[in-house]
Amino acid sequence: MAGRIVLGANQYGKAEVRLVRVDRSADRHTISDLNVTTQLRGDFEACHTQGDNSQVVATDTQKNTVYAFAREHGVGAPETFLLTLAHHFVDGFDQVTGGTFSAEQYAWERIEDGDHSFVRSGRETRTATVEVDGDEEVVVAGLKDCTVLKTTDSEFHGFPRDHYTTLAETTDRILATSITATWRYAASWIDYDATYAGVRDTLLATFADHHSLALQQTIFEMGKAVLERYDAVTEISLSCPNKHHFLVDLAPFELDNPGEVFYAADRPYGLIQATVRREPE
Amino acid sequence: MAGRIVLGANQYGKAEVRLVRVDRSADRHTISDLNVTTQLRGDFEACHTQGDNSQVVATDTQKNTVYAFAREHGVGAPETFLLTLAHHFVDGFDQVTGGTFSAEQYAWERIEDGDHSFVRSGRETRTATVEVDGDEEVVVAGLKDCTVLKTTDSEFHGFPRDHYTTLAETTDRILATSITATWRYAASWIDYDATYAGVRDTLLATFADHHSLALQQTIFEMGKAVLERYDAVTEISLSCPNKHHFLVDLAPFELDNPGEVFYAADRPYGLIQATVRREPE
Amino acid sequence: MAGRIVLGANQYGKAEVRLVRVDRSADRHTISDLNVTTQLRGDFEACHTQGDNSQVVATDTQKNTVYAFAREHGVGAPETFLLTLAHHFVDGFDQVTGGTFSAEQYAWERIEDGDHSFVRSGRETRTATVEVDGDEEVVVAGLKDCTVLKTTDSEFHGFPRDHYTTLAETTDRILATSITATWRYAASWIDYDATYAGVRDTLLATFADHHSLALQQTIFEMGKAVLERYDAVTEISLSCPNKHHFLVDLAPFELDNPGEVFYAADRPYGLIQATVRREPE
Amino acid sequence: MAGRIVLGANQYGKAEVRLVRVDRSADRHTISDLNVTTQLRGDFEACHTQGDNSQVVATDTQKNTVYAFAREHGVGAPETFLLTLAHHFVDGFDQVTGGTFSAEQYAWERIEDGDHSFVRSGRETRTATVEVDGDEEVVVAGLKDCTVLKTTDSEFHGFPRDHYTTLAETTDRILATSITATWRYAASWIDYDATYAGVRDTLLATFADHHSLALQQTIFEMGKAVLERYDAVTEISLSCPNKHHFLVDLAPFELDNPGEVFYAADRPYGLIQATVRREPE
Repeated sequence: MAGRIVLGANQYGKAEVRLVRVDRSADRHTISDLNVTTQLRGDFEACHTQGDNSQVVATDTQKNTVYAFAREHGVGAPETFLLTLAHHFVDGFDQVTGGTFSAEQYAWERIEDGDHSFVRSGRETRTATVEVDGDEEVVVAGLKDCTVLKTTDSEFHGFPRDHYTTLAETTDRILATSITATWRYAASWIDYDATYAGVRDTLLATFADHHSLALQQTIFEMGKAVLERYDAVTEISLSCPNKHHFLVDLAPFELDNPGEVFYAADRPYGLIQATVRREPE
Repeated sequence: MAGRIVLGANQYGKAEVRLVRVDRSADRHTISDLNVTTQLRGDFEACHTQGDNSQVVATDTQKNTVYAFAREHGVGAPETFLLTLAHHFVDGFDQVTGGTFSAEQYAWERIEDGDHSFVRSGRETRTATVEVDGDEEVVVAGLKDCTVLKTTDSEFHGFPRDHYTTLAETTDRILATSITATWRYAASWIDYDATYAGVRDTLLATFADHHSLALQQTIFEMGKAVLERYDAVTEISLSCPNKHHFLVDLAPFELDNPGEVFYAADRPYGLIQATVRREPE
Repeated sequence: MAGRIVLGANQYGKAEVRLVRVDRSADRHTISDLNVTTQLRGDFEACHTQGDNSQVVATDTQKNTVYAFAREHGVGAPETFLLTLAHHFVDGFDQVTGGTFSAEQYAWERIEDGDHSFVRSGRETRTATVEVDGDEEVVVAGLKDCTVLKTTDSEFHGFPRDHYTTLAETTDRILATSITATWRYAASWIDYDATYAGVRDTLLATFADHHSLALQQTIFEMGKAVLERYDAVTEISLSCPNKHHFLVDLAPFELDNPGEVFYAADRPYGLIQATVRREPE
Repeated sequence: MAGRIVLGANQYGKAEVRLVRVDRSADRHTISDLNVTTQLRGDFEACHTQGDNSQVVATDTQKNTVYAFAREHGVGAPETFLLTLAHHFVDGFDQVTGGTFSAEQYAWERIEDGDHSFVRSGRETRTATVEVDGDEEVVVAGLKDCTVLKTTDSEFHGFPRDHYTTLAETTDRILATSITATWRYAASWIDYDATYAGVRDTLLATFADHHSLALQQTIFEMGKAVLERYDAVTEISLSCPNKHHFLVDLAPFELDNPGEVFYAADRPYGLIQATVRREPE
């Protein structure tokens, strides 16, 4: 095939820098528990094609910077911490024109309202990403591994039936999913922690209150509710496995099963993904 | 080497039967979410040595029984459900002389105090095991993946120094672990749910309140507190990784680090295991 | 914020359909072991906004189709199987305008050259994806979890040193990574199995033979070698963690360590990603 | 409940020390890739009950010893390395009366017969454990994650049918499992590497050649074959999930399915465990 062989899109950095920061400024300590990944983009062609590292900010240096910045600037909301990192790398090095700076944050609860002791809450993982490309900067918040289930108020019927369709229609089923959501903010430097908590609560409340005719509809309603309530959010993307719970057939044992005993399947699962956004006027 | 080749200890069953049971008896639904494993022991030699399955209760039958029993008897505390299963198999089949019946239980919280909607609490997994050997029956409760951390009130010093010792002594460190605990009950058919909640709270509170000179000491104190408070518990075993949090050396960047910025390491980790029990008088 | 709230990009389907197909047409059986995911795109707005499922090909139907097609058409190369599935859904349903059809394939080796017995080779996982958008169709092959290591012939020096740089330069280090690669084919319906084997061998041989000045350079060389050898490949993307192996400091024990004893770290790791492609002339 | 609260069984150590050792003594390098865990038992009561660490060999010291010994003694077979570690701790410290010293070993293959470059073989993980209790010493070898499958030569019928039995009898099914095996050696300091390879090959060959009437029978035959061939082995324990492959019902699509298309299920699975041993004469 014709064509010169060239380097295309590329980026590099340090992944999964595990940072725990303790704020001891008051008797009542607080902790930030993050998993930080930095990825730089820019003029790194000589490294790829000739092994010339003169423009390559070492990934070890990126890791050091994460830890040093936690001391120099504190941590605060993960979005804020990532913005500070992003500006350091993109503004501070000529060869760096952009990058992706992301983090997972793990939540901890105080044990018995104590000052120094915590138990990790496994309810969901908060995520945050800052994308920089030249002068453009996008802040995306999110969550993952937020597993929810409703025992009723979920139907699925009216779908087309072809040669390969065997699924029965239902007007009452368990609906369960593990929510992965990412939402984009209209502006930087807002109150990320409060907005995060509000968006999460809105997602959960909508899942709970919505009478579902399809997981697609539930996802759209969740996204719409977030956009209606938070002007700061311009769009939200949801990726939700349909974690099937199959009613067990107990007839062979001369038992009925009125929506009571279910088998929770692992694989396969439905996978429903959608973005809900504002249409510019 | 001399010696006839024979079958030694053996058991078999169905593992990880995922059971979700919805109690719809009131408008306010409740759910039980279990992962059940049954293991039978008895006279299965002919199966091993000759492929004669006439004594082999099929693992598929064991699975069916789990689901059918959830409808026939409800679920209740996992220990209760496992006892019912255990008696069915050990009492009901001549060739079955014992077995191990175990479950993991996953906790769910209501979303906004609603009637039908739940979010999975990832804080810990509850475990339960019933061991039967002839007429003997042992009920063991437990938990795992309960991750706790204290930012202070932990020291480690006074350990011996040999040719291979480099560790510095410390009077203030982060102590973090993921508790795996199993405790044995003196009697069957107690209030397992209430005792579970009490033991878990006791473990957490002791971890939080204890001033630690070694993770070994913290483990012993946790176990002792449970035994002191719960007469129904005869012994408790704890297995706790020491999840190291290393203070990052920020001196190369002209920064101090007064117990503030830590690297949370994955491997290797300390692993401390101990049983605390009552000495018969 | 102004703007009507609308549905954006969306897709749905069945994920992780575990398909094992046995070809018994000869005494010497062969097996295909796949994990298939189908994702459809098209006109599904009514489902999202009104719960109207009349256009929604159920994910259960998609799963059934995977299994039925394995019988009707056989499996063959995963790319071929996915193309057949893709055409069925995109050509056969008016509302489906495109989709993503992907698979993982697990390799098995014969045990002792027998006819019916296999042991799973864990060396790498093969991946395949067919993307359809209207009349456009793209076939992408790949592999993941291919872990390689070279004990020498790897240097890293000449990188810039800023306030946060502490990494020492080295002219001899262990280089280890887990290769994830995806490559795009210029045309459909080629000999996918043979090309896969050739690309994989080329990646491994280049990793082995290349004297590395940076993982970026190694990645570029691996991609270039594939493009030089396989006209059918138009571009290749590689994502490679730098799995750090740190030389252990044995000086406290009065031992030297001439490149012999290493600590294999889990996290953090470098993460290097690049695409190598043909420049159209 | 009566009874003084006392410390029961306890042990501690460093888990998952990731050690990679390169042997550069010839141009053709070799590597050893181990994950080592040390667990000491002895007189550690004062640490548990009073936080007195004067007898506690720090887990950090244990880790250092692993790395230093890799330089001082080389690695060789994992059993040999663990024996050397075991004797160091049990013979060298008065308070240490025993312990468990274990390792996983990961296999690598040369890339294209080169001198320095390797690709990790994912076929199985080798395991080794040395148990010491005073003057007694037991060496146990093993493997795990060895996934095997046979497409025929497996039956399952003749099992009892009770009220909860629905499983159909079969004279031809897929049999698949992931072998976990541990075997005990009669003596220490044998040729562990050669014996390991022989035992593994014997397990695989027996799985392949045996006509199975039950997985229990297959397990017993595998264990028996090892004991018959290797006098050095006194007993072997096998733990094998029955990884169910269900024939998909294609009748709704007017297709037959003559043992061709299967669904590979994750959970639940059968779990069969047995020990085969020599009966002392």
